[in-house]
Amino acid sequence: MFKTRTSFAFRSVILLAALLIAAPSWAGTATPAQDGAKRPFTNQQLYQWGAPRTFEGEALREVAFPLGGIGTGTVSLGGRGNLRDWEIFNRPGKGVNLPFTFFALYCEQAGHAPAVRVLEGQLTPPFTGADGYRRQEVPGLPRMEKAVFHGEYPFAWIDMEDGRLPLKVTMEAFNPFLPLNPEESGLPGAIIRFKVKNLSRTPVKVTIAGSILNPIGFEGEGTIDGVGHDKFGGNLNEIRRSGTLSGLSMSSTKIKPAAPAFGTMALATPWKAITYLSHWVRGDWWDDLQIFWDDFRADGRLKDLDEKSPSPDKRSDMGTLGLLAEIGPFGEVTLPFILSWSFPNFVDYFDIVQDQRGGMFKNHYAERFADAWASAEYLQKNLPALEKESRRFQDVFFHSTLPPYILDALSSQAAIARTTTCFWLTGGQFFAFEGCNDKSGCCPLNCAHVWNYEQSVAFLFPSLERFMREVDFLNNTKDDGEMVFRTSLPLWSGKYWKFRPAADGSLGRIINLYRDWQISGDTAFLKKVWPKAKKVLEYTWKEWDKGRDGLIEGEQHNTYDIEFYGPNSMIGGFYLGALLAGSKMADAVGDQAEAKVYREIFEKGRANYDKLLWNGEYYVQKYDKVMEKKYQYGDGCLSDQMLGQWLAMVAGLGRFLPEDRLKTTLGSIYKYNFMTDFREFSNGQRTYALNDERGLLLCSWPRGGRPPLPFVYSDEVWTGIEYHVASHLIYEGLIEEGLSVAKAVRDRYDGLRRNPWDEIECGHHYARAMSSWGLLPALTGFSYSGVDKRLEFAPKINPEDFRTFWSTGSGWGRYTQKSDGEKGASYSLDIESGAQVLSSFAVTLPPSLRGKEARTVFFSIRAGSQVIAEYRISLPPSAGGKNDAVVIGKLEDLSYKLVIRQDGDRLNLNWASPFLLQAGWTLEFKPGF
Amino acid sequence: MFKTRTSFAFRSVILLAALLIAAPSWAGTATPAQDGAKRPFTNQQLYQWGAPRTFEGEALREVAFPLGGIGTGTVSLGGRGNLRDWEIFNRPGKGVNLPFTFFALYCEQAGHAPAVRVLEGQLTPPFTGADGYRRQEVPGLPRMEKAVFHGEYPFAWIDMEDGRLPLKVTMEAFNPFLPLNPEESGLPGAIIRFKVKNLSRTPVKVTIAGSILNPIGFEGEGTIDGVGHDKFGGNLNEIRRSGTLSGLSMSSTKIKPAAPAFGTMALATPWKAITYLSHWVRGDWWDDLQIFWDDFRADGRLKDLDEKSPSPDKRSDMGTLGLLAEIGPFGEVTLPFILSWSFPNFVDYFDIVQDQRGGMFKNHYAERFADAWASAEYLQKNLPALEKESRRFQDVFFHSTLPPYILDALSSQAAIARTTTCFWLTGGQFFAFEGCNDKSGCCPLNCAHVWNYEQSVAFLFPSLERFMREVDFLNNTKDDGEMVFRTSLPLWSGKYWKFRPAADGSLGRIINLYRDWQISGDTAFLKKVWPKAKKVLEYTWKEWDKGRDGLIEGEQHNTYDIEFYGPNSMIGGFYLGALLAGSKMADAVGDQAEAKVYREIFEKGRANYDKLLWNGEYYVQKYDKVMEKKYQYGDGCLSDQMLGQWLAMVAGLGRFLPEDRLKTTLGSIYKYNFMTDFREFSNGQRTYALNDERGLLLCSWPRGGRPPLPFVYSDEVWTGIEYHVASHLIYEGLIEEGLSVAKAVRDRYDGLRRNPWDEIECGHHYARAMSSWGLLPALTGFSYSGVDKRLEFAPKINPEDFRTFWSTGSGWGRYTQKSDGEKGASYSLDIESGAQVLSSFAVTLPPSLRGKEARTVFFSIRAGSQVIAEYRISLPPSAGGKNDAVVIGKLEDLSYKLVIRQDGDRLNLNWASPFLLQAGWTLEFKPGF
Repeated sequence: MFKTRTSFAFRSVILLAALLIAAPSWAGTATPAQDGAKRPFTNQQLYQWGAPRTFEGEALREVAFPLGGIGTGTVSLGGRGNLRDWEIFNRPGKGVNLPFTFFALYCEQAGHAPAVRVLEGQLTPPFTGADGYRRQEVPGLPRMEKAVFHGEYPFAWIDMEDGRLPLKVTMEAFNPFLPLNPEESGLPGAIIRFKVKNLSRTPVKVTIAGSILNPIGFEGEGTIDGVGHDKFGGNLNEIRRSGTLSGLSMSSTKIKPAAPAFGTMALATPWKAITYLSHWVRGDWWDDLQIFWDDFRADGRLKDLDEKSPSPDKRSDMGTLGLLAEIGPFGEVTLPFILSWSFPNFVDYFDIVQDQRGGMFKNHYAERFADAWASAEYLQKNLPALEKESRRFQDVFFHSTLPPYILDALSSQAAIARTTTCFWLTGGQFFAFEGCNDKSGCCPLNCAHVWNYEQSVAFLFPSLERFMREVDFLNNTKDDGEMVFRTSLPLWSGKYWKFRPAADGSLGRIINLYRDWQISGDTAFLKKVWPKAKKVLEYTWKEWDKGRDGLIEGEQHNTYDIEFYGPNSMIGGFYLGALLAGSKMADAVGDQAEAKVYREIFEKGRANYDKLLWNGEYYVQKYDKVMEKKYQYGDGCLSDQMLGQWLAMVAGLGRFLPEDRLKTTLGSIYKYNFMTDFREFSNGQRTYALNDERGLLLCSWPRGGRPPLPFVYSDEVWTGIEYHVASHLIYEGLIEEGLSVAKAVRDRYDGLRRNPWDEIECGHHYARAMSSWGLLPALTGFSYSGVDKRLEFAPKINPEDFRTFWSTGSGWGRYTQKSDGEKGASYSLDIESGAQVLSSFAVTLPPSLRGKEARTVFFSIRAGSQVIAEYRISLPPSAGGKNDAVVIGKLEDLSYKLVIRQDGDRLNLNWASPFLLQAGWTLEFKPGF
Repeated sequence: MFKTRTSFAFRSVILLAALLIAAPSWAGTATPAQDGAKRPFTNQQLYQWGAPRTFEGEALREVAFPLGGIGTGTVSLGGRGNLRDWEIFNRPGKGVNLPFTFFALYCEQAGHAPAVRVLEGQLTPPFTGADGYRRQEVPGLPRMEKAVFHGEYPFAWIDMEDGRLPLKVTMEAFNPFLPLNPEESGLPGAIIRFKVKNLSRTPVKVTIAGSILNPIGFEGEGTIDGVGHDKFGGNLNEIRRSGTLSGLSMSSTKIKPAAPAFGTMALATPWKAITYLSHWVRGDWWDDLQIFWDDFRADGRLKDLDEKSPSPDKRSDMGTLGLLAEIGPFGEVTLPFILSWSFPNFVDYFDIVQDQRGGMFKNHYAERFADAWASAEYLQKNLPALEKESRRFQDVFFHSTLPPYILDALSSQAAIARTTTCFWLTGGQFFAFEGCNDKSGCCPLNCAHVWNYEQSVAFLFPSLERFMREVDFLNNTKDDGEMVFRTSLPLWSGKYWKFRPAADGSLGRIINLYRDWQISGDTAFLKKVWPKAKKVLEYTWKEWDKGRDGLIEGEQHNTYDIEFYGPNSMIGGFYLGALLAGSKMADAVGDQAEAKVYREIFEKGRANYDKLLWNGEYYVQKYDKVMEKKYQYGDGCLSDQMLGQWLAMVAGLGRFLPEDRLKTTLGSIYKYNFMTDFREFSNGQRTYALNDERGLLLCSWPRGGRPPLPFVYSDEVWTGIEYHVASHLIYEGLIEEGLSVAKAVRDRYDGLRRNPWDEIECGHHYARAMSSWGLLPALTGFSYSGVDKRLEFAPKINPEDFRTFWSTGSGWGRYTQKSDGEKGASYSLDIESGAQVLSSFAVTLPPSLRGKEARTVFFSIRAGSQVIAEYRISLPPSAGGKNDAVVIGKLEDLSYKLVIRQDGDRLNLNWASPFLLQAGWTLEFKPGF
């Protein structure tokens, strides 16, 4: 690499038009309600960026932060520091806790009696139970006085303090999370560390001991309520050492490799000074805990026994690994644990095709790791790199100027890809339920109409998303274009679920295919899938648009699990989006004739749609039997009415309906469907928002005409819909409305009412909630085409001082823009990982500089402190019209030509040929005014 | 009856000695800690009498107030007004809720849109669940803004308000509760009323509609999560009218009379203006609720359909009964419902003798009522009398000057007799578990060592208690005196559980037998049972006191489910109490020789006990293998060490250990075992108190010597033990200590942490907690012998202005004493129900009059305003020594002679022959000074 320094003329251009979207700047004061509109939050609440919320006291009760990789299952970190909901047994496992599994602290200081604590915050009410508080959670042992939880997915921290101890303990837990890298984001384990700070001037001896039940034999159904369980017996705990790692290795002599419950677990550490018990004393009554605890509390040292006899039949054992340290005055030590597991056998207990049930598959992670110890070793060996990139993600993502509840909405729901809602089988086959019942996935699999809404996987792990598209079109779509909207295992069996196709599912997948093609820039992928995608569009003409007038009619099964009839805003919008996407994809693969047909139908369709369905405030359903035929919406204001259009926005297809009507429609959805109080509302359906909560209804009938039995979810509140409407409101410039809707969701998930890392719809970790990622492009103005190699930002909030994470199919990083009053601004693009090839890059002026012309410009590319290329330019006043400033440079033997243009409030960088920005590089760009 | 008026001389006597027990008078200020003693409460908190606590907000969450009679099962009134935990199916049923079962309000007022509300307070967090909040609880329907719960067992009230309604609604619910009258306290149903007050000047039309699921077919296992259930089908709802009653009658065409699940239910009303639906529309999805609610909210009237087709297979129906009323300006109306049930078939799913399981019995209530409608009719017809006496009980009991938490401790736990912990079969056979698991009784049956502690049934329903004694001795005791401490069904089968006898169980039952003989005065009962009781005592000499030195030795199974060895305070105390009781009972039945033997062993025993086991602070266990043999207590300070002595105190046997040592021992138990904070305590056993709660440990080792594995419950906290220790502390004059222990329990059961009407030990509604009734004699100084016809009171708190409930085997009423400064005092005894035969009646002077001599006396017997007998006397100063004032009177042709004596601070009334006080009579007694 070499450094280039060039001076050149930069000629600014006059303003052409103000951007249509108003970007309000946070003023730090409350907004008065405008024309009676609902403003449940102050501007400060909406726009303020900064630290994310923390949880304490009773708000810790519902917190369960999932720890685990893609397709590995998870164990959740409870708000108090407890490990809960062990979902590593190839099933969801809400309420599955491992008895007598906890971390404990021993603290000894000269002049004081030794103290012991379970390293958890105090238990929270209720304390009911027919035998008192569940004994297997050791409720009678002392705990830390105070715990404060704070999560920035994938990292969670709990600060623990106790007025009677000279220590502060911070628990940190995470599983490596590397955007665009599913392999390294798919490791079956968790890093759990305790940073212990001595707050006194006297040295302190500490032990932190992790105790854990060997659960092998448990098949994931029911719960484990004690050491005894019908499936236990032959559980073997051993103390194992390899390389720098030592710890507890757990296996079973009874469960054979071919059994569904087969597996291994490990609790290991690279720490040298350890104390341990391969298993607690097997006594009568409660001797085991009594003897363990008395041993531990006496001096913080265990008996260091590695007794290798397997457990008796129908019971298992707890083992303990303790880490010893001495901490000097005001000193600090970090004691690290690695928890890992391997339960390779994945049973298809759920198949949508009943006679396919019972098949056994292998988890993808089991292809990489022979057992839990192997994955612990891998984690240990590769942790520096894995952790560095995970922390870089956390740093870039959370040190953003997007409001914390938005970051929380994005990241907490992106975690769904790493819960039991998804799984990942050998050969990298990625599948997903809609969500999870407490103990089973539901409903199977890859449900096209639910997964339509999802954006997180598409942007963070696009290779997995593309695999889902291949399944949608290549496995699930019959030759006539009928897409079966649920997947049966194994793939390619040719067995289909016998049920009518979902109109929204089929058409939405075409828009999503366009998105995935754009994110990846991979036209080979498109070509592979396209022939079937084309069939799906053609199927529409057979079933739903026989007249090819661009209006959907007939029986339209959809994501509300019922059928709509007649032209309607929701399915019609999907169709328009699919036609538009189809026409562009057809063009790209050379199907010009098809492209033309799609475009013609699309043009007819949008005119018809606009004409037929518009009621002056929003778009409706036109069906003459709305009041008689059950489960329609008719004149209702449907929150999903613009869903197809929103998918098109995120995919980069832009608006296909009139912009003014879109804005009016979104405004109507907010006005009519966003509830700021549910206390007088009557909803006989399912309840996701109540009392004084706020939330967006699926539908309302502000002008009357509510059918006696409207569609079955009409009065419900789904976070997946709230997020896409919030995103769409922001796309259409209704910023505060969009932010309000998103904030309302996160306020409902406050740790007291619900778990912030588990948004519920028809199941836990419900995939639809991954629409939240759509808030990122809407708020940042991020737009990317890997096909055109075009990247743009146009922040909608905090534009004077803006930072955000971004990701594309090939890289991810940080985007920053900052104004320096009226004098200038700086823009920078950091490539944190991967690489980014660009032909064009565009940004916008913040409000303080709107209408101004740049007089100087500084442009550079750096790799850390090393300058790759750098240009400083003085600019003459503009003479009007558009003129390009051109930079010719050379980088690693490649010449490049960069054209810089101000086009109104938009600053464009265009490379004559695609330009490669490498990981670690920063592109910086500073116009002066 | 005629009126007698007599004047006579009253000669007071000089003070002999101050009573040993100090009765502090509440000073309204905080007590400073005395000599470092634990004083977690202020005097105001301990002594203040007044209104009981109320519950609101999140503290409503755990509240479940049982509604039901003896042996009928219960449904609980939840804190918010919801009916929960339907335990009417001959099993406990925690978490068994009837879907779509709720009361709803329609409110219409000119000028306002009609409003509807579910008549419940707002739902409380968490709002989790894989499908949102449980839909069957209609979480999406509007509820009352505020609910305040208040319970005075058997009555519960919920005040409901809503800022958007012109109404205040008070829900009242109860089941008739008549002390001494198990029949009328054993009715299978609940009275539920809504008092609706119009807070405005405009008339209001209201409907209150009760909807209920027909649950017939459900067998009590698992839960009912919707209208569909495998056991449902053929459920028949009908609108029925008979006499003044109309309502919903629920039955099943599928479940036959011999089936365990057979039964009927009714929701009825005497209200004339009704509206109804025999069953909701059976639709798809959620049509049923939608159609019902839309119908109801439209005008508060339902379709008045009595459609009689049974439900389709595997589903049931909801039906609704609505009561219509119009309420004038500021007017009020009370809308009454009667809920009743009949599930006659009681299955022995639990028998302690395994091969006896599966037997089917009939509930006693089914002998009285053919079906639920019949019991509704009975309730309706007899309600005036039933309610009058229930309210009189509530009035007398709660308008006491005992502190509200004490009344709460007494009454809430007396309710256990009317939960599924107990059952009542044909022929009046009353049985009981120890307590209840969520869905099954546990453990069976009539466990002697657990039921030992219980006092509530003994004093409130003594005939049932006597039946238990007959079972203990006549059914469960073998010919050699081995008492099997768990009962198998049916009685008299001769089948016994094969397990060693419980030493505490066997011996405690002898003390309790003495108590029950004293309460009843029924020597015929004693004579029936005595031969076997004698055998039980003799069994001791074979097993536990071979040397007949009065010290228990050998292997002693006991209530801690383990065996103690060697002489020890706990079992030794039981033995002494049993010997003392035995000697008195032997005397009474004419076994003078036996009586002499018992007394000799008793005298040896108490000397040996005192000598061997006293350690200067308390009594211990002497066993040379305490540190090796598991589960002993050795030098521990056992909370139960004086249990036998306490049983003797309540039974009226008095102290058999030195009074100073008793007081020191009780003080030590308080000092060492009462924890005011659990945050640094380590307990690996079960947990009933934690965090900042307070509670009494079962044992501690203040002088060291804790065995490595002490008995398995030693670190636990049991309310049944806390209450008896509290009572015993008070008996021994440690008033504040005793009150503190009792208050600590009730503070733990605060609605947020636990249900105030469900104290938990090894199960819900745990029988041991009925030791709480022992607080009543301890605090009031109540002492009664039906044998001697002697009744005494000597209040320990608030003696200057004292009121209390009392009950004996033949009657119950109110006792009042009130001082009038230094001038005088008045004492009165109201016979509220039954009758009371007395030979002697004694009261004490309050502290303000201590040491004074009465100068005048007024004595009367009244029946309401009617004077039965009345005397006024002027008294000369005492000449010293004891002199009796004598009244000779005549009542209904019977002459009586009453001797009045002041003996120190004690005032005694002695009748020369037993004197009958009838129901409704008040004996009043006013000395002047």
